[in-house]
Amino acid sequence: MPTPTLAEVARHAGVTPATVSNVLRGRGRVGAVTRERVLDAIAALGYRPHLPARALAEGRAPTIALMVTSIANPFYPEFALAVENALRPAGQFLIICNTAGDPDTGRAYLDQIAGTLSEGVLVMNANLDFDDLRATELRGAPVVLCMWERPLDPPGLPCVAVDFRLAGELAAQHLIGLGHRRIGAIVGSKAHGIHAARHEGFVAAMQAAGLDAGAAPLIYAPDTTQGGYAAAREMLTRRPDLTAIFATNDLPALGAMQAAADLGLEVPRRLSVVGITDIQLARESRPALTSVAVPTVEAAELAVALLRELIEDGGRAAGEAKMCVTSAPHLVVRASTSRAPD
Amino acid sequence: MPTPTLAEVARHAGVTPATVSNVLRGRGRVGAVTRERVLDAIAALGYRPHLPARALAEGRAPTIALMVTSIANPFYPEFALAVENALRPAGQFLIICNTAGDPDTGRAYLDQIAGTLSEGVLVMNANLDFDDLRATELRGAPVVLCMWERPLDPPGLPCVAVDFRLAGELAAQHLIGLGHRRIGAIVGSKAHGIHAARHEGFVAAMQAAGLDAGAAPLIYAPDTTQGGYAAAREMLTRRPDLTAIFATNDLPALGAMQAAADLGLEVPRRLSVVGITDIQLARESRPALTSVAVPTVEAAELAVALLRELIEDGGRAAGEAKMCVTSAPHLVVRASTSRAPD
Repeated sequence: MPTPTLAEVARHAGVTPATVSNVLRGRGRVGAVTRERVLDAIAALGYRPHLPARALAEGRAPTIALMVTSIANPFYPEFALAVENALRPAGQFLIICNTAGDPDTGRAYLDQIAGTLSEGVLVMNANLDFDDLRATELRGAPVVLCMWERPLDPPGLPCVAVDFRLAGELAAQHLIGLGHRRIGAIVGSKAHGIHAARHEGFVAAMQAAGLDAGAAPLIYAPDTTQGGYAAAREMLTRRPDLTAIFATNDLPALGAMQAAADLGLEVPRRLSVVGITDIQLARESRPALTSVAVPTVEAAELAVALLRELIEDGGRAAGEAKMCVTSAPHLVVRASTSRAPD
Repeated sequence: MPTPTLAEVARHAGVTPATVSNVLRGRGRVGAVTRERVLDAIAALGYRPHLPARALAEGRAPTIALMVTSIANPFYPEFALAVENALRPAGQFLIICNTAGDPDTGRAYLDQIAGTLSEGVLVMNANLDFDDLRATELRGAPVVLCMWERPLDPPGLPCVAVDFRLAGELAAQHLIGLGHRRIGAIVGSKAHGIHAARHEGFVAAMQAAGLDAGAAPLIYAPDTTQGGYAAAREMLTRRPDLTAIFATNDLPALGAMQAAADLGLEVPRRLSVVGITDIQLARESRPALTSVAVPTVEAAELAVALLRELIEDGGRAAGEAKMCVTSAPHLVVRASTSRAPD
C-alpha cells in the first residue's frame, strides 16, 4: 500500500490540507473536535508525516540558512555542526552560504533563498549590511545574528549575544596575574571592527591593574593564522622586551606562537600567548593554547530556538529585536601561558 | 509593478508553465517556434527567473546534500566550500548533513531529503551502506561518491576517484629518496578500511626500493590528530631508531609531529614526517608539513558536474555508474622532511 498523502488524510477527515498541516505542526487555530477528527484520520490511514516532502508540497522548504564568510574558517564548522544538531530533531536542515566577506554575495543569497528555500537566516560575522537583513525580515524571513559581541549595545535585530568584552578582560587578567607587565595586543579586525569589544576588555583590565594600556603595542591584523604571524613577528622584532601577547582570536594567537618559534622565543618560558574562543585547534596545538572559551554550542542552540520562535510567530514580533545572552565566557589555561620571566 | 510570475509568462506565451520551465532550464523537448514565443514573453514581461521560488512552486528544492561524518573535520569544510562554489552559478544550494559516522543517521538523512528537499546527494566518507545509497538512487535521487580511493576498482556507484595508492607511493618515494630506511607507517583507518590503498602504495614503493615493508612498524589509528599522536608516541617509544613516519592523512601526520616534539625528537633533523591530502593546516603547522596534495577543488567540481548530469538525465543512466578520475596527486615538500640522519 502506498504511503497516504496529506491530501488523503484531509479528505478522510473532511477538512482542508491546511488544517491537517496546522494540527501536525501545532500551529493556527484548530478546534478540539476538528483536531480529534484529523488525528483519527492520521491513525486510520497510517499517515507518517514526511516533513520535507510535506513542506515542499506546501511550497516551502524546511531549511535554515547559515551565512558565514567562509566555512573553511575553523570556528564556523564547529558552530555549523552545533546548529545542525539543534535543527535536526525538528526536521529542519542546514544550508551553508559562504559570502566570502562580500556584501553583494550576501545580498544575493538573501534575495534568492530567504523566505523561499529557507524559512529563516542565521548570520555569523558575514560582513552583511544591516539594511539587507532588515529587508529580509520585511520579506517575512526572520534573521538572527549569532555571536553578537556587545550584550550592552543591542543591534536592533534579533540576536544571541556573548560578552566578548569580558572575554578580553579575562584574558588580560590572566596575563597580569602571572606577573606580565609588557603585553602586546593583536586585534583581529579593524580599529572599530568586530573585535573592538574584546580589545576594550583587555584595555579595561590593564587600566584596572594600573598599567598603561595606551603604551602597550597594538596591531590590527587579519583574523587568520598568517595575520597573527605577521603581526607578532613585527611586534616582537620592534619590542623584544614583551613577555606576553594577547590576541583577540585563536587563529592570530596560533600565528603568534609560530612567529615566536621562528624568532627563537620559547613559549611560554620566554613569551606567553593567550587567545579567545577556544576552537579545537587551540587544544591540539603544541604548546596547547590558553584561551577564553566561548559557549559555542549554547549560542547555536539559543540562535536556533530564537529563530524558530520568530518563524512560528510569523513575523508578528518583528521589530522587537529580542536578544538572548549566553552564559559567560571562561578562561581555559593550557601550556602557552606561564609566569612572566624575571 | 510586481515581478511577473512564471504563470504570467506562460499565459502571455500561450503555453503551459511546464513549457516555460523547460525553456528556462534547457530541459525537455520544446519546438523552436514555441521556444521563441516563450523567450519573447520573458523579454516582454521583464521576467527574472527566481530559481528557488520557482523550484518550490514546482514542488522541488534546488539543493544538493553533502553527507559528511562531521563538518568540523578540517578537510570537509574545504571540500564543502569548493562544492558550494561549483553549485552557486546554477542557482543550487548546499545542505550539510553530518552523519557522525553513524549509518542510521545517514539513512535517516537519505530517507528524509534525497529526492524531495535535495535533488541529489554527494557522499564523502560518511560510513553509509551502499545498499542505502542504491535505494536512494532507485527513489530518483542520484548519488555521487566523492573521493573514491581506488580508480582501478570502481564501486558500482557513480563516483569521482582519486588515485590514493599513487599518493601513498609518492610519499614513500620521497622519504626513500631522502635516504630513509627505517620508516614507520600510521594508517588512519582499519586494516581494510578506506586508507588501505594509500598504505598499499607505501608498501609498493618500499618493496620497489628493496626495503622490507613487512618489517616496518605499522599502527592502525583513528584518523585524527590525537590518533596520530598516540600512535606515533607508542611507535617511537618502541622503535627509537625510526628516522621517518608516513601517515595516510594530514591530521595523524600533524599528531605525529606533536608526539615527536613531546619526545624531544626534532622534526625534521631527527625525524621526518609526511602526510597525504594537503589540508590548510599542513601549510600552517610549524614545521610546515610535507604532504601529497590531492586535487580537492577539481574533485568537487567533477562531483558537482557528474551529479548535475545524472539529475538532468532523470535517472535514465542509472546503473551505468560512471566514474571520473581527477588529475594525479602530487608531492608538496615543506619543512617536515629532510635527509635521513647518518
